[in-house]
Amino acid sequence: MDLLSILIMLAVLFALARIGNRLVESVGFPGLIGEIIVGILIANIVINGESLLTLLNINIESGSENYHILETFAELGVIFLLFAVGLETKVSTLLSVGKTAMLVAGLGVLVPFVLGYAYITAVDGDFHHAMFMGAAMVATSVGITARVIKDMHLIEKRESRIIIGAAVIDDVLGMIVLAVVKGIAENEDGLAIFDLIQIVLVACFFVLAVIAVAKWGVPRYHQWNEKRIASYIEKHGKSPKGFNDFVVGIIVCLALAALAEYIGLAAIIGAFLAGMLFADKAWESGMEKKVDTLTTFLISYFFLNVGMQVDVSGLTNTTVLVSVVVVIILAVISKYIGCSLGAKIGEHMDAKSCNIIGFGMVPRGEVGIIVASIGLRLEVLSAELYSIIVIMAVATTIIAPPILSKFFRSKYPEEFVATMDDKI
Amino acid sequence: MDLLSILIMLAVLFALARIGNRLVESVGFPGLIGEIIVGILIANIVINGESLLTLLNINIESGSENYHILETFAELGVIFLLFAVGLETKVSTLLSVGKTAMLVAGLGVLVPFVLGYAYITAVDGDFHHAMFMGAAMVATSVGITARVIKDMHLIEKRESRIIIGAAVIDDVLGMIVLAVVKGIAENEDGLAIFDLIQIVLVACFFVLAVIAVAKWGVPRYHQWNEKRIASYIEKHGKSPKGFNDFVVGIIVCLALAALAEYIGLAAIIGAFLAGMLFADKAWESGMEKKVDTLTTFLISYFFLNVGMQVDVSGLTNTTVLVSVVVVIILAVISKYIGCSLGAKIGEHMDAKSCNIIGFGMVPRGEVGIIVASIGLRLEVLSAELYSIIVIMAVATTIIAPPILSKFFRSKYPEEFVATMDDKI
Repeated sequence: MDLLSILIMLAVLFALARIGNRLVESVGFPGLIGEIIVGILIANIVINGESLLTLLNINIESGSENYHILETFAELGVIFLLFAVGLETKVSTLLSVGKTAMLVAGLGVLVPFVLGYAYITAVDGDFHHAMFMGAAMVATSVGITARVIKDMHLIEKRESRIIIGAAVIDDVLGMIVLAVVKGIAENEDGLAIFDLIQIVLVACFFVLAVIAVAKWGVPRYHQWNEKRIASYIEKHGKSPKGFNDFVVGIIVCLALAALAEYIGLAAIIGAFLAGMLFADKAWESGMEKKVDTLTTFLISYFFLNVGMQVDVSGLTNTTVLVSVVVVIILAVISKYIGCSLGAKIGEHMDAKSCNIIGFGMVPRGEVGIIVASIGLRLEVLSAELYSIIVIMAVATTIIAPPILSKFFRSKYPEEFVATMDDKI
Repeated sequence: MDLLSILIMLAVLFALARIGNRLVESVGFPGLIGEIIVGILIANIVINGESLLTLLNINIESGSENYHILETFAELGVIFLLFAVGLETKVSTLLSVGKTAMLVAGLGVLVPFVLGYAYITAVDGDFHHAMFMGAAMVATSVGITARVIKDMHLIEKRESRIIIGAAVIDDVLGMIVLAVVKGIAENEDGLAIFDLIQIVLVACFFVLAVIAVAKWGVPRYHQWNEKRIASYIEKHGKSPKGFNDFVVGIIVCLALAALAEYIGLAAIIGAFLAGMLFADKAWESGMEKKVDTLTTFLISYFFLNVGMQVDVSGLTNTTVLVSVVVVIILAVISKYIGCSLGAKIGEHMDAKSCNIIGFGMVPRGEVGIIVASIGLRLEVLSAELYSIIVIMAVATTIIAPPILSKFFRSKYPEEFVATMDDKI
């Protein structure tokens, strides 16, 4: 193993990302955008025919060992971020937004799929291309919104709960859409309907089972455990030794992330549900702060990596450029309409709250990119459409946070008095 | 990237290591030994011709992508551990033990080298074999002792300071020995003496430069910074925004670890020196707790990986077994004699303190293994001697902690009243 090159890569990328973060934050935008921009610059700047990374003596070519490490850090970063969000989400609060979250997720899947499908059918005509574009438009990547909400300390707000609940349901629906689209592309004879039903049932069972454990199992465990500790103290005069809570949390988080990934959901959904299992005691045991520390170290690599997916050279062709702009506009508008409509119908929320929920669901991030790369691998998506989807996924990720944070500030001005002072 | 297999590997290995830790601790030994034992079991248990790892569906064959990740986590774990130790070590305290630390390190290098060289010359006769065995006997791996000291909350003790100071000097001396041995093996015409002087000067310059910055630069920076903040508050009525201390700490830690590795020292020496730069403010800013959190997550992979280097099948041959036992005894005794003698001569310490220092320097850990693998690569070490050195390195790592913790308890019984109660 080349420890030196790994240490240089980790140090340089972390430093650059955090500098980007501070610069962008100092002009009033969410810092994570600075990290994504640093990623775009890193991947695209060429000086005298040599890329910036080569000049910095960092090798993160796709497929290299170092890139593999970077990707692992990025994925763990977003897994721990969602675990931290789960730690701040009590299951009862999540269930209390259930109906609205379902509407937000449902309409937020339907509208983007239809618009994406219709656009490609109109300009390109290829059925498979249109299906994959629809599927790529569907997937919300909750990591970006989660970081905005966490950085602004707004997890307690109803809008935040709805967004996070809807993101979980969105992921299940997105998985169904992807399975259908993939099934059609792979199988000329038609879709294997029983396989499809099976994976959908497994995914729903997984999500509902963890929620049930959080609602009924965990409180009973705490009751039993408190009794056990009390009787131990009575008998031995001191507390029994046990596992460190943080260690148990990490193990459960990694295990449920793996399980979610195994059954076809995103690993981050498993991590979020794992966090919910510990939500009752997370603050008391200091687990929240510890998971935040892990996230601080790892998450910048995630946003850097999102930025690094953008190949700016694809944007020189005018036709492609027009398509990119149209797809980005469609992606933003369709998600915004679908989700804010869901919030409106669900509980007659006011315009400000609907705006927050509509824009909170806009970022596609890595989930859109994953859908596109499956399409590319199955050879039912052109390289050009692949680039367009990747740029759309990154663009929605950059566009949403500033608007989202503006809407949050306008809805909850009292929470930002201190921050507004800072701006004077 | 196969995220699923990475998550399974991380979850299963972390869980097994922590279970091993608790089991071994519950019978009164330091928990890290449990983690090493789990590593040995994982690497050596075969059921029906399949290894345990294959049955657990984990692929960490040497050279595989997953093993690469595991190694990176292991190395970062020990880097952050030494960074945390540095955070608790003020430069003035380190300098106050300088003379004794030098004697401990010097004699702790001389005696093991001579004994290792003499033993192989006597039984094998090959000059290069003898030189490499000598070099492998020299290198102390301070990670193991550091964890024992940290787990026991004894960093403040004079013995701990001396061990840590001596470990830094030991690493510089060990690097010189390795450079000489390697130079002789590579160059039949004799050693390139000027190259050697150059790397030694660079290494000494690096260590002394960081110590100088910690002693004179850092206090001046804090003075300047406090003035700057005071005048900013006077002018703007609020504190200026700046980088998060923890983020700066991580960047400096990774950068100095890389620099140390680059000039031929161990990365952990750079991390330790980096920690010392922040020692004055680490507690105040909460950096210590945060670095401990990172360490908790990563360090178990390090001890697992140490254990996984042991190939038990090599121990079936009686001649080899005898050699292994002799080499282990020589390794323990030579380091113990050299280092405790250093402590005795240096400041007339009592027998208990000399025992602590002698045994604190015994673990060879990964440094001995690195020396052996260089010898194997240069084809001046036989495969058999390589196995013997690896087993010696792991064995010293297992033998030292229980004895060290016993000596610490006997020297400082008042610190362990609470823990002794626990045992009732």
